[in-house]
Amino acid sequence: MLLRAKFLELEAEKPIVVLNKNDAEDLGVKPLERVELSFNRKKIVAIVNVAERIVREGEIGLYEEIQEELDIKPDEKVSVEAAEPPKSLAFIKKKLEGQTLQDREIEAIIRDTVDHKLSDIEITAFVTSLYNYGMSMNEIASLSRAITKTGKTLRLRTKEIYDKHSVGGCPGDKTSILVVPVVAAAGLTIPKTSSRAITSPAGTADRFECLAPVDLTLEEVRRVVNKTNGCLVWGGSVDLAPADDIFIQIEYPLSIDPFLLPSVMSKKKAVNAKYVVIDIPTGSESKVSTEEEFEALASKFVELGRKLGMKINCVSTFGEQPIGHAVGPMLEAREALQTIMNPKKGTKDLIDKATTLAGVLLEFSGVKNGKKEALRILETGRAYRKLREIIEAQGGNPDIKPDDLVPGPKVAEFRSTCSGSVLWISNKAVDMVAREAGAPKDKEAGMVFRKKLGDRVRKGDVLFEVYAKKSNKFNRALRLVEKLDIMKIGKERRMELEKFPVRKEEEKYFILER
Amino acid sequence: MLLRAKFLELEAEKPIVVLNKNDAEDLGVKPLERVELSFNRKKIVAIVNVAERIVREGEIGLYEEIQEELDIKPDEKVSVEAAEPPKSLAFIKKKLEGQTLQDREIEAIIRDTVDHKLSDIEITAFVTSLYNYGMSMNEIASLSRAITKTGKTLRLRTKEIYDKHSVGGCPGDKTSILVVPVVAAAGLTIPKTSSRAITSPAGTADRFECLAPVDLTLEEVRRVVNKTNGCLVWGGSVDLAPADDIFIQIEYPLSIDPFLLPSVMSKKKAVNAKYVVIDIPTGSESKVSTEEEFEALASKFVELGRKLGMKINCVSTFGEQPIGHAVGPMLEAREALQTIMNPKKGTKDLIDKATTLAGVLLEFSGVKNGKKEALRILETGRAYRKLREIIEAQGGNPDIKPDDLVPGPKVAEFRSTCSGSVLWISNKAVDMVAREAGAPKDKEAGMVFRKKLGDRVRKGDVLFEVYAKKSNKFNRALRLVEKLDIMKIGKERRMELEKFPVRKEEEKYFILER
Repeated sequence: MLLRAKFLELEAEKPIVVLNKNDAEDLGVKPLERVELSFNRKKIVAIVNVAERIVREGEIGLYEEIQEELDIKPDEKVSVEAAEPPKSLAFIKKKLEGQTLQDREIEAIIRDTVDHKLSDIEITAFVTSLYNYGMSMNEIASLSRAITKTGKTLRLRTKEIYDKHSVGGCPGDKTSILVVPVVAAAGLTIPKTSSRAITSPAGTADRFECLAPVDLTLEEVRRVVNKTNGCLVWGGSVDLAPADDIFIQIEYPLSIDPFLLPSVMSKKKAVNAKYVVIDIPTGSESKVSTEEEFEALASKFVELGRKLGMKINCVSTFGEQPIGHAVGPMLEAREALQTIMNPKKGTKDLIDKATTLAGVLLEFSGVKNGKKEALRILETGRAYRKLREIIEAQGGNPDIKPDDLVPGPKVAEFRSTCSGSVLWISNKAVDMVAREAGAPKDKEAGMVFRKKLGDRVRKGDVLFEVYAKKSNKFNRALRLVEKLDIMKIGKERRMELEKFPVRKEEEKYFILER
Repeated sequence: MLLRAKFLELEAEKPIVVLNKNDAEDLGVKPLERVELSFNRKKIVAIVNVAERIVREGEIGLYEEIQEELDIKPDEKVSVEAAEPPKSLAFIKKKLEGQTLQDREIEAIIRDTVDHKLSDIEITAFVTSLYNYGMSMNEIASLSRAITKTGKTLRLRTKEIYDKHSVGGCPGDKTSILVVPVVAAAGLTIPKTSSRAITSPAGTADRFECLAPVDLTLEEVRRVVNKTNGCLVWGGSVDLAPADDIFIQIEYPLSIDPFLLPSVMSKKKAVNAKYVVIDIPTGSESKVSTEEEFEALASKFVELGRKLGMKINCVSTFGEQPIGHAVGPMLEAREALQTIMNPKKGTKDLIDKATTLAGVLLEFSGVKNGKKEALRILETGRAYRKLREIIEAQGGNPDIKPDDLVPGPKVAEFRSTCSGSVLWISNKAVDMVAREAGAPKDKEAGMVFRKKLGDRVRKGDVLFEVYAKKSNKFNRALRLVEKLDIMKIGKERRMELEKFPVRKEEEKYFILER
């Protein structure tokens, strides 16, 4: 069938065309089936949308991407025929039936996902079925390998590559900004890629971007790491796992995350990591809330590491409150910089967590007491010198000072109305308030905690501050503080559960960060 | 946030807006989350799409439907705020976790589906989870009731309403065109709504449309039934089950049909049916291939009927070949008309099946030998007179003759290259060839079988004919005949399975008709 090209002023990541209902019926294709377009010896398979008015009979509506790829002009005629669905659709159907998928079947699905050959409905059915039926360890390993294979990979001179990852769930977790310089200063290679925030107020890429550019090309990353042993860059810009980015867009609205393990491990494999420490925050509002759950998840990481040729060590960390005092990209960058510049006056739980995780990596390299050695590297200023090197290599200003990082300008203090001590802090409420204030988009927005779990509080003491850049977001955040129970101050914890405040679960809370 | 309306030349069934990426981030909304638009005291919640180029910062792209509903002009400012997802999303998530849903939860999901408040990803996750986990009978009953409740219903004077349904799977099944006049001629009320073809060459609505209009309003249907006791109309035009139409768009690309039972039963409930006969074709390429599967499905229909206040009788019918000789809308209408006008010369298996099913309904009303009575009504011409009444009441010409129905004009005969008898006919191949020839879109396209199962065949005998309206489709259908094994001619069936032709399963085959 020959159809006249109509240019739609529309963009999409997938090749989509819009057919008139009658033409679609004539071709025997239904919405979301495929057609093959032929024009000037170029062929494209596109997914069909159907319209009754905006595309008339004899016309075909083309999105910008297809206009460019076919190099076609409006009103030129393009040949259109029904096309078969990709083979991988049969494998998705197999998973829909609850069957276990083979290596090559998973690879075909991931390849077609990345090549935009599958519709959202098809990908959603796949993600949902993986979630509903669960996956075997072989399937998880296949997924990890396939996600790596369909992305770019970092090739470095050394094969001895170290890496660190947190499965997320703790606001204010700026640990990587300390771990990477410590490990790199010890002479180990640690090419750290990080994510931007999805459901949290800040990802490490958002934080470190306040100190240096993080949108580096793969070649730039290679140069930085070869020069300094380390880096702190955004994983998205180096395109290590494009499949994962697509799955996240499905997982997020459904608040499910079947890709936790393959997502993490594919990115470690993409940098060719050999030794990996995985931080699993454990707490009532974290992904993992008990030691049993920690052990179950940790053993999967270790087994998966074995299948993928990596040595994995998982650490259960205290996840009942934010790490350090600051939450929000710039506030966190400032706290990390202060701590690494002056560890004696730095934030204690941050140093404790960072040296624990760095210590595990140092011990992989043969160091006896890793944590002690990590602390020594930090306290002797070697970590700060390494951080300066990395900032400079990534194109930032190594002389940056904490005072250069100015949050706000809107600030509000919240004071205690009673005396006692801090009984709990809700990570969920912290995430929500900091996001409402504008984080991560507004780097200057966030919260600072003046009191943390167990701290003695007197009536009138400042508990925390809220920072925002824009007044409408500031006001919304302050209203949210009133609605939520962020902190509980009281006389020591008792077993009278009926008096324990029951938190409202109305608001959506789902941690997609991995 | 105030955004400037940009008119997109786009239509969608859902309320969708396109935001610039930066504005979406500022609002804290991700693709497929919701915003509330306010303009001139009107408020609409819309699903968010995100663009980087075609919608600039400060703009909001509006689809035609939203332009009209807000009654807004280009460049006028609309207020946009993040909105909560509908409550039903929480219930979809519950099903994602494998939990059983309550009545009111299912109703909320179906209501929001019909009101276009859920994104395709959310509806797909629901459909997939129903398929993966299965449903309890209570859930199936809730779904049936909710689908009925969110559609229109037919209110007639009588409460004694009869109905007939086929779960589909047999090409050429024009049975309803005989059953309705027979049952109506007996004085029983049978307001038959039918579907158009989805994956088959013809639905009953497509067939009967060759004899009379089938796109009637609900009020017109009421008038036709009150006058004639029966009707044969398209269910889609009376909007009995709008939810089902939406689910079909998800099920079709995935080749799954978790809604078989609720879809069928909701439509019967929508016409207030009290006695229903359900035809379940049983055969190797049907939905049900063994008596055990028939019994399992039939008992579910009966139980569901009990929950919904209907008496159900299921009939297992022979489903190994097309019903009668003709396949395709016009050819089938012609065969049905010929048979009802002159039953003595009519198609025997068609009469057998139609009188069996009509007989079950007559027996519900107290008739002793229903099948015999149905045959009498047919043979005495009462059924034909009733058919004329129905055709006229629906706005057709009651004097229409078989010769007025002219298929083709392209025709090709296929002859046997050997002698023997017909050992099998592939329904799947018949469906594919008739659809390739243009059915159901081209009403004149289809196939006619001159030989059927068990018939003696001599070399050179015509086995079947292929009809098409358009030459390109005609040629494609002929090529497909060569590729597929439509019929097997041989000396009686033997147990030498290795000689039995193995059919190619390359092509997609999925029956969504219910």
